[in-house]
Amino acid sequence: MDSRIEEHAKILVEWSTEVRQGDMVGILTSPQGHELSLAVVKQVAKAGGRPLVMLWTDEISRAFFDGASNETIQLFPKHFLALVENVDVVIAIYAPDNTKILAGVSPEKQMLDARTMQPIMGAILSKRRVSTIHPCNSLAQQGNMSLDEYRDFAYDAMLIDWKKESILLNKIKDHLDRHNSIRYIGPETDLFASTEGRIWVASDGKNNMPSGEVFTAPVEDTVEGKIFFDIPFMEYGKVIQGVRLSFEKGEVVDYSAEKEESTLKQIIETDEGSRRLGEMAIGTNRGIKQYTLNMLFDEKLGDTIHCALGRAYEECNGTNQSAVHVDIIKSMTEGEIYADDELIYSRGKYFYEM
Amino acid sequence: MDSRIEEHAKILVEWSTEVRQGDMVGILTSPQGHELSLAVVKQVAKAGGRPLVMLWTDEISRAFFDGASNETIQLFPKHFLALVENVDVVIAIYAPDNTKILAGVSPEKQMLDARTMQPIMGAILSKRRVSTIHPCNSLAQQGNMSLDEYRDFAYDAMLIDWKKESILLNKIKDHLDRHNSIRYIGPETDLFASTEGRIWVASDGKNNMPSGEVFTAPVEDTVEGKIFFDIPFMEYGKVIQGVRLSFEKGEVVDYSAEKEESTLKQIIETDEGSRRLGEMAIGTNRGIKQYTLNMLFDEKLGDTIHCALGRAYEECNGTNQSAVHVDIIKSMTEGEIYADDELIYSRGKYFYEM
Repeated sequence: MDSRIEEHAKILVEWSTEVRQGDMVGILTSPQGHELSLAVVKQVAKAGGRPLVMLWTDEISRAFFDGASNETIQLFPKHFLALVENVDVVIAIYAPDNTKILAGVSPEKQMLDARTMQPIMGAILSKRRVSTIHPCNSLAQQGNMSLDEYRDFAYDAMLIDWKKESILLNKIKDHLDRHNSIRYIGPETDLFASTEGRIWVASDGKNNMPSGEVFTAPVEDTVEGKIFFDIPFMEYGKVIQGVRLSFEKGEVVDYSAEKEESTLKQIIETDEGSRRLGEMAIGTNRGIKQYTLNMLFDEKLGDTIHCALGRAYEECNGTNQSAVHVDIIKSMTEGEIYADDELIYSRGKYFYEM
Repeated sequence: MDSRIEEHAKILVEWSTEVRQGDMVGILTSPQGHELSLAVVKQVAKAGGRPLVMLWTDEISRAFFDGASNETIQLFPKHFLALVENVDVVIAIYAPDNTKILAGVSPEKQMLDARTMQPIMGAILSKRRVSTIHPCNSLAQQGNMSLDEYRDFAYDAMLIDWKKESILLNKIKDHLDRHNSIRYIGPETDLFASTEGRIWVASDGKNNMPSGEVFTAPVEDTVEGKIFFDIPFMEYGKVIQGVRLSFEKGEVVDYSAEKEESTLKQIIETDEGSRRLGEMAIGTNRGIKQYTLNMLFDEKLGDTIHCALGRAYEECNGTNQSAVHVDIIKSMTEGEIYADDELIYSRGKYFYEM
């Protein structure tokens, strides 16, 4: 086994989820992720936990959608909830055979499913948890790389000294927590939100691997202005590009996309909460060298910001509810970020680098 | 997708487990079984059930054993039990990467694990359930075949008219239920047991796929005599061969094996119940052409009998409790079977063929 797989597993178990004696651990994986899941099982066992491995793949979702009526899609999977309610830790490994396998399923069906699954996603969010990937050809292909190149790309972003990284990220978090608003400025962009009473979270490898961002939930009704997101992203198997959003009193009042606008429309119209921002964030991981259409990595890109339509995280004191949480990213090498009246980022430099 | 995979999935969902609207369905598989599990997911969805897929493989067990202390092996997986308690149906697909991956793990550790898992196995047995295989190279290799040959071998045994087969098997069951004892006679073999108050079960594809056996649980204390099992079998990754057992008042009083006697010893000494027979059975599936060291198929071989050390099935009115249930097979082409004083099988002919 590639020694980096063992190192990755150790970080997930020891740092990200701090598995300890007696822990019930749920591992979600795919066949492509089997090798990493085996390494994780071994580390969980070493830490004194009991692992249970579930297959949770886009391929399974596709097979389900291909057979299920809308009524069946709304049948609540109480066996899955029972499982999640009885775990202390969730480790989710993403490693699909084919990242586009859901492209042929209507967004309506997928959103119906997302609504059905909402209590389960909520339960998972309340656990010690981490989401990660295992390098595989489909992810490499999506990032325009060979598998070997992608392995280097991915491990360079993940196998770092997270204790050290955590100190830096918490420095940014503490700074932002001392302010009451955030403002992104750049080409076609001037977006403001109050963050009063909200908490900035330093994503230091506890819930995402790789990590490298600070994020909060804006006060929902205070989001005002417009923003142009120049980095493409994938949702429901579609690559959505060139998104422009305008907000008034927290709600999307105008939107467009250069590609896949209909999919953007589906996202925004999912429910009440999907018209509002559940997250505003700053990416800091300069170890990630390029976007690869994988949100887990892309939203951490250094010198970017991102916003998420939909569900807010409770740990930020966020209140926005939605069946979806869709991140969209903007590069900031030509932009500025203000916290209240203080310039905290300008064209490639964070406040501590100015 | 090979149309036989879809046909197999349909039999599992429609005939074996009769999935219906609203059913919570647990599917246990391996990466090698992924294609069949996708076909099953689709059929479950069509029937109105909600599937959840778990990876439950020897590879995962091996990784767990490699990391776990004996204390951790005894940590009860309450998340797994919660899942099982909340399903209506369990469909288990066996398709390992490597059938010998547990050979290097001590039988003590594996039995410790079996004891820990006993309540979960018990809960699974109380569900509508089926165990099957998906043809893969490791099973083909174990059976001395190419994958294509093995596919033909396996599907020939499974894709048959189970409704018709069920009628025949129930004819044998009804006949045996009208008697109060069973006796196997053959080379080095004369084994008797009372079956009074016990029920013969026709295995017609409801719990095993393939099926083709009738079985009961003998009255534990009445098993008397000796038996020579000439067909090898695999347990704990070891091939055990040439087993001889002698019984007095239901207990094994003498035993030997031509190969892997120490593993046989471990099985017999697991607990109180593993010294007694939990099952006596007659295999009837002549579509299975040879043994392949896979009990799911081998115990169904036509013109054989088998006995199981350990746990009895409640559906037979069996009472023997044990952490293990280990089947051992004997060919009967030179043997005879009596039910009370009636000769019901002789050298290749069942009573209805005489």
